[in-house]
Amino acid sequence: MIQRVAVLTGGGDAPGLNAVIRAIVKTAVREYGIEVIGFRDGFKGVMENRVTLLTEAEVSGILPRGGTILGTTNRDNPFHYQVAEGKFEDRSDQCIETIKEYADALIVIGGDGSLSIGYDLAQKGLHVVGCPKTIDNDLAVGQAKTFGFDTAYAFATEALDRLHATAESHHRIIVLEVMGRYAGHIALHAGLAGGADVILLPEIPFTYEKIIAKINERLSQNKRFSLVVVAEGAKPLGGEMVVQKVITQSTDPIRLGGIGEVVARELERRTGIESRVTVLGHLQRGGSPTPYDRILATRYGVAAMDLAARGQFGYVVSLDGEHLKPVPLAEVAKGIRKVDVEGELVKAARKIGICLGD
Amino acid sequence: MIQRVAVLTGGGDAPGLNAVIRAIVKTAVREYGIEVIGFRDGFKGVMENRVTLLTEAEVSGILPRGGTILGTTNRDNPFHYQVAEGKFEDRSDQCIETIKEYADALIVIGGDGSLSIGYDLAQKGLHVVGCPKTIDNDLAVGQAKTFGFDTAYAFATEALDRLHATAESHHRIIVLEVMGRYAGHIALHAGLAGGADVILLPEIPFTYEKIIAKINERLSQNKRFSLVVVAEGAKPLGGEMVVQKVITQSTDPIRLGGIGEVVARELERRTGIESRVTVLGHLQRGGSPTPYDRILATRYGVAAMDLAARGQFGYVVSLDGEHLKPVPLAEVAKGIRKVDVEGELVKAARKIGICLGD
Amino acid sequence: MIQRVAVLTGGGDAPGLNAVIRAIVKTAVREYGIEVIGFRDGFKGVMENRVTLLTEAEVSGILPRGGTILGTTNRDNPFHYQVAEGKFEDRSDQCIETIKEYADALIVIGGDGSLSIGYDLAQKGLHVVGCPKTIDNDLAVGQAKTFGFDTAYAFATEALDRLHATAESHHRIIVLEVMGRYAGHIALHAGLAGGADVILLPEIPFTYEKIIAKINERLSQNKRFSLVVVAEGAKPLGGEMVVQKVITQSTDPIRLGGIGEVVARELERRTGIESRVTVLGHLQRGGSPTPYDRILATRYGVAAMDLAARGQFGYVVSLDGEHLKPVPLAEVAKGIRKVDVEGELVKAARKIGICLGD
Amino acid sequence: MIQRVAVLTGGGDAPGLNAVIRAIVKTAVREYGIEVIGFRDGFKGVMENRVTLLTEAEVSGILPRGGTILGTTNRDNPFHYQVAEGKFEDRSDQCIETIKEYADALIVIGGDGSLSIGYDLAQKGLHVVGCPKTIDNDLAVGQAKTFGFDTAYAFATEALDRLHATAESHHRIIVLEVMGRYAGHIALHAGLAGGADVILLPEIPFTYEKIIAKINERLSQNKRFSLVVVAEGAKPLGGEMVVQKVITQSTDPIRLGGIGEVVARELERRTGIESRVTVLGHLQRGGSPTPYDRILATRYGVAAMDLAARGQFGYVVSLDGEHLKPVPLAEVAKGIRKVDVEGELVKAARKIGICLGD
Repeated sequence: MIQRVAVLTGGGDAPGLNAVIRAIVKTAVREYGIEVIGFRDGFKGVMENRVTLLTEAEVSGILPRGGTILGTTNRDNPFHYQVAEGKFEDRSDQCIETIKEYADALIVIGGDGSLSIGYDLAQKGLHVVGCPKTIDNDLAVGQAKTFGFDTAYAFATEALDRLHATAESHHRIIVLEVMGRYAGHIALHAGLAGGADVILLPEIPFTYEKIIAKINERLSQNKRFSLVVVAEGAKPLGGEMVVQKVITQSTDPIRLGGIGEVVARELERRTGIESRVTVLGHLQRGGSPTPYDRILATRYGVAAMDLAARGQFGYVVSLDGEHLKPVPLAEVAKGIRKVDVEGELVKAARKIGICLGD
Repeated sequence: MIQRVAVLTGGGDAPGLNAVIRAIVKTAVREYGIEVIGFRDGFKGVMENRVTLLTEAEVSGILPRGGTILGTTNRDNPFHYQVAEGKFEDRSDQCIETIKEYADALIVIGGDGSLSIGYDLAQKGLHVVGCPKTIDNDLAVGQAKTFGFDTAYAFATEALDRLHATAESHHRIIVLEVMGRYAGHIALHAGLAGGADVILLPEIPFTYEKIIAKINERLSQNKRFSLVVVAEGAKPLGGEMVVQKVITQSTDPIRLGGIGEVVARELERRTGIESRVTVLGHLQRGGSPTPYDRILATRYGVAAMDLAARGQFGYVVSLDGEHLKPVPLAEVAKGIRKVDVEGELVKAARKIGICLGD
Repeated sequence: MIQRVAVLTGGGDAPGLNAVIRAIVKTAVREYGIEVIGFRDGFKGVMENRVTLLTEAEVSGILPRGGTILGTTNRDNPFHYQVAEGKFEDRSDQCIETIKEYADALIVIGGDGSLSIGYDLAQKGLHVVGCPKTIDNDLAVGQAKTFGFDTAYAFATEALDRLHATAESHHRIIVLEVMGRYAGHIALHAGLAGGADVILLPEIPFTYEKIIAKINERLSQNKRFSLVVVAEGAKPLGGEMVVQKVITQSTDPIRLGGIGEVVARELERRTGIESRVTVLGHLQRGGSPTPYDRILATRYGVAAMDLAARGQFGYVVSLDGEHLKPVPLAEVAKGIRKVDVEGELVKAARKIGICLGD
Repeated sequence: MIQRVAVLTGGGDAPGLNAVIRAIVKTAVREYGIEVIGFRDGFKGVMENRVTLLTEAEVSGILPRGGTILGTTNRDNPFHYQVAEGKFEDRSDQCIETIKEYADALIVIGGDGSLSIGYDLAQKGLHVVGCPKTIDNDLAVGQAKTFGFDTAYAFATEALDRLHATAESHHRIIVLEVMGRYAGHIALHAGLAGGADVILLPEIPFTYEKIIAKINERLSQNKRFSLVVVAEGAKPLGGEMVVQKVITQSTDPIRLGGIGEVVARELERRTGIESRVTVLGHLQRGGSPTPYDRILATRYGVAAMDLAARGQFGYVVSLDGEHLKPVPLAEVAKGIRKVDVEGELVKAARKIGICLGD
């Protein structure tokens, strides 16, 4: 059996990362007598040889905390490593060498980017176990839910609860833009849980006519406000999202707002009702994980360590219901898991009268 | 197709009941053009002829609210109806007559008690659809989770978060008693999510020796406090729970505290460490449902109305993953769903070093 | 004594408005036997003759709810009333007539705008009592705190707590823009409570050099992230805030982001550290009032009704500690209450090492 | 000027203790260049010579955390120190010696017990500064509010919000017992903020007749539930609280429940309405301090360190509004600050119809 396992977290942070790390360490130490070391800031820390020993004391008290004690980064692919301004080299051999110096196996906690690197390293002989991480819930690892998602849409729901009162008092349209560039899971869940009137997803191109019909239906019921949840990747039918290039006085082109702002402005223009937009942005990532996410993350951590201890390398951990179902690393990066537009959840939304823009 | 459907809520309240009612009404009105009436306070309201029309306006704004706008009660079984002090009669015919006067079918939202009554009424020819409700997550309706459970254990987890700081500052053992008379789902989930050191379930008889061994292990790591979560139905090995009959000055026998208090006192006696107990009680029932529960409850409401509209009577709604899986009413009351003591969740708890008392 | 009192809420909504309305109604009915009517949507409702009777049943359950059940608007000054596109008239006589038709006195719950109208109406003989409302805590009504402020900065603090984890994990500068166009109370309080490293207020012009010095100090302590709170009215020293006029493709000029975005971009440019901005916007207004605000709002409501019942018109209610201190309406609109830059709170911030940009 | 200051926390923990410690350390290091050491577990740590150096790194990240990183205890008075089972000695000289060995002055963060010891040590020549701590808000240090109180009653208010739904759904009387043995500040504030129907305080002896009259008034308004908040020290008129001695089977006499349980049982007996009790207990102490308390605690910490640095010993820090008002240590233990039963807050409660039991 392996004597030492290394762990790193890569990509955007998600609530629950610390719970995974804690579960890995506790399982390693208590169940298998294996030592755990952590690389700092994802693969960057491997390349720069920055490691730390992870004992039980190190992971004590981190269960409820957001972020990752190991740090993370979106960059520094060892297969395409920046060695000078504009100059990149394949440093994967050095990467593998460094990891092997410290440990017999590597657990990569990350999204499709980091897991792809993990797969490529595994192809070159490294012992790799993957633990999927995506706050957007859009990683195609079986049907498994991923930690961080419950926390993200719970916060978006809380935001809707808050905006409800102010929208109603001022008789406004309030547009809430949430994460979801390619998949609308957060928008759909938050919209359902927060009582949204309109939900716009990347999977369902929308028309303003349909949204306005819903707003008018509400007006006819004497409801003079509406709540619209829009995923950042939502698009009007027949058109690419208008990426508005704007020119500042200083002549630097910059991107203006997002789809939320575009929708709010268009609705105000067409209906004459005051409209406001709120963009949640990074608030969705932070915060203490919900109890649901803490448990899910703990289970993933235990399961990943189990795989590593059994020598079952080249797999990504995936939990479907009560059962551990490892998925080959090779299969992970095959596209993302979108909202099933014919699924039961979307149908339920329609049945209770939520407008999906189509 | 039916023209009118009646709804009632029975048994203890659970966060999400209002979300179910709202989803039933919206689906009925919008999808099927069916009218909905509600009986107040469960079957009691049927017997007393207390009804209310449930329009969309009536259910507006209730999604995030705890409790049930229809009211509920644990009593008044029409098959065993109290007509005078100590005198009971079968008034089920009157019950069915009243329901039929107002509606073509009845949706019962309730636990095993109310669903059993629903089954018995169905046997006598009433069109009944059941919607399962159990905050303890212990109803044996397929593998489905039930709404209210996520909210309940989330609050218990928050309580553990709060108690953690005070336990650590004072170097105490803190015992948290949570709901769960026959099944320990809440205790297990809250304990995992809240970082408990010991979790005691009805399914696993405990010994004080095992608990104290865990506390001593922590002392040896210089951790001078411990958090113990105990389900109200947990029992020491080999003995019935000590139901302490106590005598007050006024000579009325009353029940003293619960298992939480018993455990706290015994641990203090044996270890010499100050121990305190907190009993969550009704705090677990109240409160706004979590976003997770709001969605689950909404889906149940839509599914129950779908069944009624399709004329698929005699079934209880059950959602397993994305799929609607009606379960015959007859099967529901067949015992409760206990924690699987060999399941993945219990194993994960053990692997990260949580003491389960055995 | 008066027989009937009218109430309206004007200007932006603030958490606690419903608690004020509830306290006015309960005090009127129970203490003085006075009837209360409410005008909808501020002075607009007066002009359009939209009233509602406010009984105890009407205000039942509204204590914890954000917004205002009466609705509000920022517009429609009866002294400058829009009668047609671009045409305004003084309709104050009609306004007073309408109010007198329904009630013997008017309680205006509003900010400097609505209270100024109240003052002008009082000059023309109407019985007016004012109840101050400003979520920014910047109304110059004695030293009194106003309801809504505690809720607003509490939410901003929660946002900082959330952003802390993600800033630390990614080694970023995170800029949080909060309300406060002319006074920085929210920024100062949230910054202190949320452990900000830098707080930028309208009252203290800042230089980037000072901010960067603080960031560098943190780097030297191996703290690779920083949290910056900036009030929307903060300005760099010696320069007006750069109001960036931008041109969209559609040739409509629009305003780009706010000071938060300007600061984040400038800090990233100068330090090379990834910087992100979050704008809280309307999230600060919504939500259930904190317990502190519920009590404060209740006290204001009781005190306003007391003044009206005693016939003490022309005053704005103001509570300083335990004592009711009515302030003449005339004094209210005399400028706003800014952060005391030599006060104890600012000094405390400096002593614990918070950079205020100067 | 002093070179080194020692800090300790004594008595029950209160949310905000860590914020005080953090502010002391930061102010000492940054403003005055003074070193800070901490004694562990109050005066016990002094007697046992357990100290720790408190650098800025040590206090990093503790602002939002409940409890105290220094630990605390309610025992071990150096003037009455237990040297053997049942044997006590005055070890105050040793205590002073130990403190002087490490520091030039001592900051005691504690309630009346710890501050009294501080006063006695000051009489013997030690340089002492006091920082008041009482979650009950009942310490007679000027009119100052103390940190922890806002968090405590905020949690009690949240509990009322939760219980509201379940009380209403089941048509029950729910009794919530909160802290407050001698003063009812928490009960009064939570009751006002949580919309209680009845509030029972130690300062106002109650009669069941008055409570029942209120419940009946509500029934006549068709409100079939009531919320009662009771401070643990509340008492019926003319009688000591019934301290129910109970006899367990094991013949150990123990105390049964508290006033909350007594009131609930009595109300159920007299009204026939189902009544339930919830005791908040230690949940009120734990948890992250509210933003309000974090600021207050920070100000106290800065002010205490200012006093110490200026050599102004023998005083307890007290902040009244914006102004620092040191109070002589001698004056602190002169009784507690009770609820002013003729004050504006109690009057406001009565005016909106809350029953205070008299």
